[in-house]
Amino acid sequence: MDINKVLNGMQEEGLDSMFVVKPGNITYLTGYYPSSYSIFILIDEPILLVPKLDLKEAEDVSQIPVEEFKSFPEVMKILSGKIGVDPSLPMETYLKLSEKFEVNSTDLIATQRMIKTEAEIKNIQKAIEIAERSLKNLKICGTENEMAAQLEYNMRCSGSIKPAFESIIASGKRSSFPHASVSSKKVTHPVLIDWGAVYNHYASDTTRTLVQTENEEEVLEIILEAQKHAIKQIKPGIKASYIDKVARDIITEYGYGDSFLHSTGHGVGLEVHEIPSLSFREDKKLETGMVITVEPGIYLENDFGVRVEDMILIKKRGKVLNKMDSKLSF
Amino acid sequence: MDINKVLNGMQEEGLDSMFVVKPGNITYLTGYYPSSYSIFILIDEPILLVPKLDLKEAEDVSQIPVEEFKSFPEVMKILSGKIGVDPSLPMETYLKLSEKFEVNSTDLIATQRMIKTEAEIKNIQKAIEIAERSLKNLKICGTENEMAAQLEYNMRCSGSIKPAFESIIASGKRSSFPHASVSSKKVTHPVLIDWGAVYNHYASDTTRTLVQTENEEEVLEIILEAQKHAIKQIKPGIKASYIDKVARDIITEYGYGDSFLHSTGHGVGLEVHEIPSLSFREDKKLETGMVITVEPGIYLENDFGVRVEDMILIKKRGKVLNKMDSKLSF
Repeated sequence: MDINKVLNGMQEEGLDSMFVVKPGNITYLTGYYPSSYSIFILIDEPILLVPKLDLKEAEDVSQIPVEEFKSFPEVMKILSGKIGVDPSLPMETYLKLSEKFEVNSTDLIATQRMIKTEAEIKNIQKAIEIAERSLKNLKICGTENEMAAQLEYNMRCSGSIKPAFESIIASGKRSSFPHASVSSKKVTHPVLIDWGAVYNHYASDTTRTLVQTENEEEVLEIILEAQKHAIKQIKPGIKASYIDKVARDIITEYGYGDSFLHSTGHGVGLEVHEIPSLSFREDKKLETGMVITVEPGIYLENDFGVRVEDMILIKKRGKVLNKMDSKLSF
Repeated sequence: MDINKVLNGMQEEGLDSMFVVKPGNITYLTGYYPSSYSIFILIDEPILLVPKLDLKEAEDVSQIPVEEFKSFPEVMKILSGKIGVDPSLPMETYLKLSEKFEVNSTDLIATQRMIKTEAEIKNIQKAIEIAERSLKNLKICGTENEMAAQLEYNMRCSGSIKPAFESIIASGKRSSFPHASVSSKKVTHPVLIDWGAVYNHYASDTTRTLVQTENEEEVLEIILEAQKHAIKQIKPGIKASYIDKVARDIITEYGYGDSFLHSTGHGVGLEVHEIPSLSFREDKKLETGMVITVEPGIYLENDFGVRVEDMILIKKRGKVLNKMDSKLSF
């Protein structure tokens, strides 16, 4: 992470200090993933404050100087001027800071995190590799829960310290719930698998739906058509909301518009859900270096659901980072 | 969850509405664990607002009425009067609410969550059972990462939908870092395992340190003495900070006071870390129905660390919920 980029951003926004507690932002700025309440402060020089119990570990990993976080009044003494904070800052901290300082909410760091460096892209690619390899070795048998256990075991053994998010293995009627996680039900068709690995704190996020019946396959074909056309339109300068529109229009043409219950995608990096959102509400444009998902889905109540999700790196066009086939059968 | 208890608390604090977005609090109040941004509102009647994609799933699970969350301005129209919110509310939401309402930070729900019902205690006990069974079937071999993979696989297969937190398997020198997570190093002695399962959204949190050398065993004996005496002092009405003092004094007598780097324990429930904290800073007293950890530790820099952690239910005295031996050998 280039601290100068943050300093430049601060200057543009007229900020004197940055006060950061969001774990993903701290990892971005220091390389250290905080396991307890930690604070990153940037005035002219950056500093990371962690509690005593994490001090040795943080010093081992952090790319910037680390000191012990002793108390909030001590922190207040270091800060000065107009302070930039993330909009997610807990209100209790906001109110404490506001007693003494002018506190401004800023998307400065989230915005910089949208554009990935080469090193970040490599981490994401590695996370995708681990996730795909883990799915290939997965047996379609037992309960959804047992399949998730297998899948996460495979990812763990390949170096993913945790799943990137709660793995979704939703089969039969449960596949019609977009966020169905897992159950103790025996796996049946279709089986929707939405899973991700973590490598060097960077996440992957992919979905495959393994179909069996003709009906399921037809819906899968619509999804793949929508996904393909949406990906084709990706290039720097295009509105993120337009990509959503392209996918949604195709699904609507086939009469399933009301069954596409979520936006078409989102940024991925240190967190699974980052900006930009590929939704009709998003004003942002796509830029070179972004990594986003494209994940149209159709969810038929009391019947079944299909979603396919790939990760795309934005260069001159959209480059699909996933290597795995989109059509897998049950 | 008894909504009337919340209504009574609101009356005592002079609040007209509650506005809740913290996932653990939403689960506590509704039985539904939100997988996207959701809002619980209580004026006279409770209501849960979830985005369209989660609507069916939430309706299946929630104990209170569910409606679609359409937009924030719509939500603003429902609210009225003085609004109670959690201190962790993101400042951007706080500022939006403050434009129209008086917004008060309150620990009302966290405080009610401290005291567990019979049903909550059963869930916690079940989570402990799953975690302990999973450790019993664990082979001490391979890398820390592989051991964690095994352990989490065992928990998954026993019905824990995810680990309660990032499992710590820290061996050799790494055991001297209290929060060491895992590495790809081959496991050596001692091996500190801090792990937890989840059952019906309730967590367990336990630590065992498997020792080999005499030196390691001596330190373990001190930890066990400190833990035993601390647990003996637990009863309703006693200050949480006193339990910390009891454990710390014993460790200090043996000359390891500076090596006990964290507080002695914390509440556990829907989240792994809940109030009260068993630290010198805590003003709260222990009460019947709390479930807390008691987890003294000694961390010797560049050498090794030992921690033992059990979960205690507070009745007339402290009742240890764990069944597993405290002394396990490598």
